Amino acid sequence: MSAFKSLKEHFQKIDNFAHLSSICGWDAAAMMPTGGNEARSRAMAELSVHVHSLKTQPQLAEWFDKASEQALTTNETAQLREMKRSWLMSNVIPKELVEASSLAGSKCEHAWRTQRADNDWQGFAKNWQSVVALSQEEAQIRAQATGLTPYDAMLDIYEPGTSSESLTHTFDNVKQWLPNLIDQVIDKQAQEKIITPTGTFETNKQKALGLEVMKLLQFDFSHGRLDESVHPFCGGVPTDVRITTRYDENEFMQSLMGIVHETGHARYEQGLPTSLAGNPSGSARSMGIHESQSLFFEMQMGRNASFIQHLSQLAIKHFPEHNVKLFETANLNQLYTRVKKDFIRVDADELTYPAHVILRFEIERDLINGKISYQDVPELWDSKMQSYLGLSTAGNFKNGCMQDIHWTDGSFGYFPSYTLGAMYAAQFMAAMNKTIDVDAVLRSGELTPIFDWLSNNIWSKGSLLSTDELVKQATGETLNADHFKQHLMNRYL
Amino acid sequence: MSAFKSLKEHFQKIDNFAHLSSICGWDAAAMMPTGGNEARSRAMAELSVHVHSLKTQPQLAEWFDKASEQALTTNETAQLREMKRSWLMSNVIPKELVEASSLAGSKCEHAWRTQRADNDWQGFAKNWQSVVALSQEEAQIRAQATGLTPYDAMLDIYEPGTSSESLTHTFDNVKQWLPNLIDQVIDKQAQEKIITPTGTFETNKQKALGLEVMKLLQFDFSHGRLDESVHPFCGGVPTDVRITTRYDENEFMQSLMGIVHETGHARYEQGLPTSLAGNPSGSARSMGIHESQSLFFEMQMGRNASFIQHLSQLAIKHFPEHNVKLFETANLNQLYTRVKKDFIRVDADELTYPAHVILRFEIERDLINGKISYQDVPELWDSKMQSYLGLSTAGNFKNGCMQDIHWTDGSFGYFPSYTLGAMYAAQFMAAMNKTIDVDAVLRSGELTPIFDWLSNNIWSKGSLLSTDELVKQATGETLNADHFKQHLMNRYL
Ligand SMILES: [Zn+2]
Ligand SMILES: [Zn+2]
Repeated sequence: MSAFKSLKEHFQKIDNFAHLSSICGWDAAAMMPTGGNEARSRAMAELSVHVHSLKTQPQLAEWFDKASEQALTTNETAQLREMKRSWLMSNVIPKELVEASSLAGSKCEHAWRTQRADNDWQGFAKNWQSVVALSQEEAQIRAQATGLTPYDAMLDIYEPGTSSESLTHTFDNVKQWLPNLIDQVIDKQAQEKIITPTGTFETNKQKALGLEVMKLLQFDFSHGRLDESVHPFCGGVPTDVRITTRYDENEFMQSLMGIVHETGHARYEQGLPTSLAGNPSGSARSMGIHESQSLFFEMQMGRNASFIQHLSQLAIKHFPEHNVKLFETANLNQLYTRVKKDFIRVDADELTYPAHVILRFEIERDLINGKISYQDVPELWDSKMQSYLGLSTAGNFKNGCMQDIHWTDGSFGYFPSYTLGAMYAAQFMAAMNKTIDVDAVLRSGELTPIFDWLSNNIWSKGSLLSTDELVKQATGETLNADHFKQHLMNRYL
Repeated sequence: MSAFKSLKEHFQKIDNFAHLSSICGWDAAAMMPTGGNEARSRAMAELSVHVHSLKTQPQLAEWFDKASEQALTTNETAQLREMKRSWLMSNVIPKELVEASSLAGSKCEHAWRTQRADNDWQGFAKNWQSVVALSQEEAQIRAQATGLTPYDAMLDIYEPGTSSESLTHTFDNVKQWLPNLIDQVIDKQAQEKIITPTGTFETNKQKALGLEVMKLLQFDFSHGRLDESVHPFCGGVPTDVRITTRYDENEFMQSLMGIVHETGHARYEQGLPTSLAGNPSGSARSMGIHESQSLFFEMQMGRNASFIQHLSQLAIKHFPEHNVKLFETANLNQLYTRVKKDFIRVDADELTYPAHVILRFEIERDLINGKISYQDVPELWDSKMQSYLGLSTAGNFKNGCMQDIHWTDGSFGYFPSYTLGAMYAAQFMAAMNKTIDVDAVLRSGELTPIFDWLSNNIWSKGSLLSTDELVKQATGETLNADHFKQHLMNRYL
């Protein structure tokens, strides 16, 4: 058997175990009773050790060497590149460091769950110091292996090919116009009269509504399902995508738009190339591109008035006992595009969200590159929040730098993906509008032309192309944040 | 590390992977959309290959040798015995035969799904011939390894320590009184006036009722859950037991009693000794003992009038729109103890069920021992059905020898467990009644004394004792089918 073929079979084997991990991970979040946790964690840890041993088997190095000398098609070359990337990711960090980071991360995250509620920065900082130090060590090793700066080497895990230099450039531009735009919009919206949801929105009705919206969005129910979990997510495997939501009976809007968001993630997964199933080249391109699909669904389509008109009709149908004025398209539209300066990223609206991300990017970049210390973070957070959103977090750690889970276990480099996703989504919409009257399609409710465009340009490409090449082939240019700016101005001004 | 300790760690590792297999198996039956099947089957096959390789690792033989010379406590000796049994089970059959059997079994079972509907014995027999031949080969190999007869060596997989000689003796005795008893009971019941369920019993109400009955039966919801599947089963792991049912909106009784049955299986699993979790000695003793627990719940408790009185009250509460007379204890009791001679084992009542099992036992025993040919089966089936239940299956293959899935993939030796379970359950009840006024406990609805007895005598023992020793310690004697006969006569005459 050729080295390339051996590699393909080996990665298919790894993918088989990853399949079990995804399903059991989904189960732990959506189905498992509390008492099942201990044995499940042990089983998952065993599986993860096994997958790691498969990814670090000695003969892989030889196979990669030999395969690099084989005559391969373009498609196979991409497969080899992505297998190699996956292999390097698993082999570059020494086992001892992986274990130390995992231990420190678990400890810090676990304690954070109570420390955050207690606003206990001192207690948190004690654990976090080690997490930061170990992440810096990891970043150094990754930097040496890739020739990137330490922070860029971490960024590369989530966004291969994206540099912090270009990100800084892009975000600096956003910082020039965003704070002003936010103020203008808030001023404008101050006049609006809005009816807000009151009364009870029963879970089973919300679920029926959500399922109907998933149908409108052509979620493939023979390859996936909708369930509930405390933290909504999109999991499972491409042939069986598991999305979750959380219902709050006091209102229906958040869960509904959450379902639209996760359905975007899900359709990307469901639309990945089946011919490359089980190979890293057949999986999603990057976290940013993944988020571009969920945000295309949530922001570009979902918060478009032509789409909201369908939500309006469906909500009236499922909640006949409620005041119909609440569900009128104009009212829902206002509710879904309401802008407010606030402390918490996960609750932020479309317009203020980038400010939360840019702040985090700037801090984690300098932290991982060793330009600032972990002790500087609260003050930096406060000053940046003041400058971007006019809010002070002095002494308010729990709604400041302690609010996110990401940093507690050392996931540095992830935050930019959220805003990259928003920017890519806007750029995809601008490109789509050149050949499709998207607004007319949204009004019609028969959304196939939109999904065909996404499938042809994004989903079916898997990881065959680099992110830059993918975006260029789809839109004629690499990332251009002007489309995002234009989108925000069109929608909010 | 001592060889014994190495073995324990190795079997814990195997158990960790078995955990993932159980959860993903449950998921495939209860949650997975159809399109997920192909990738899931591949992942499960990969896992099963991995578990097999763990069970057949060469160093295990050496560890077992060394461990046999270690000084071990009684408890440790039992652990070693059960690990060795599990190891031998996986190593005795050559890989080629395992693969050939699995292939022939899948092929036969798959074709059977349409052949049965078509009553196509000739088509079925063509595939089944290989399944039988391969099972005979397997039985020969197992016989050589164990010193048992071929059929007893197959029986040993499910019922370690049970011989077909003693089974034949027991069943011959049953055959002497059962057909007559059935006739008497049917005669007697002919006079009964019964109200049968009509109208709609909504799934969500049936589910709420089922959950409440599980609560009455003290199912531990922090270590398990109830879901739906086409074929009800009890799966998952002891810390997270997953039971399923199937709802038919035309009636509520079958699903309800099905839940009682699976709850019996579940409480055995939930009650297994946690100190032996992950070790074969900590798992259920045998299929027959497992079934004894589900049948204790379903037959000994569930169909007892003192218990039915609770079902009656709960059903009235959950189906207020239905005629209350349907739910009266006396009527439910008559419905739940109705006896009818019929073709299908899975639909059989408590009284006729043993006839279905004895017939299968006698045929599979002689088939695996090579005394009859697969071609003789339809005729034998017909003649035994005539003699035990007065029904002819001549030409009626689909409701005769083609009705069960078990034989299609070579699971010979399993059927006796059902009736062994019924007999053990009756014997446990007789023993329990010596120290507990079971009827008074059932009437009270506070069933703890019953569960304490089962926990102390059965659940907490895992596989530490042999089946004979377990039953003897619990009841003062080994299997005695008189208790079963007495139970049937008390209930039905
Ligand atoms: Zn997302
Ligand atoms: Zn059972």
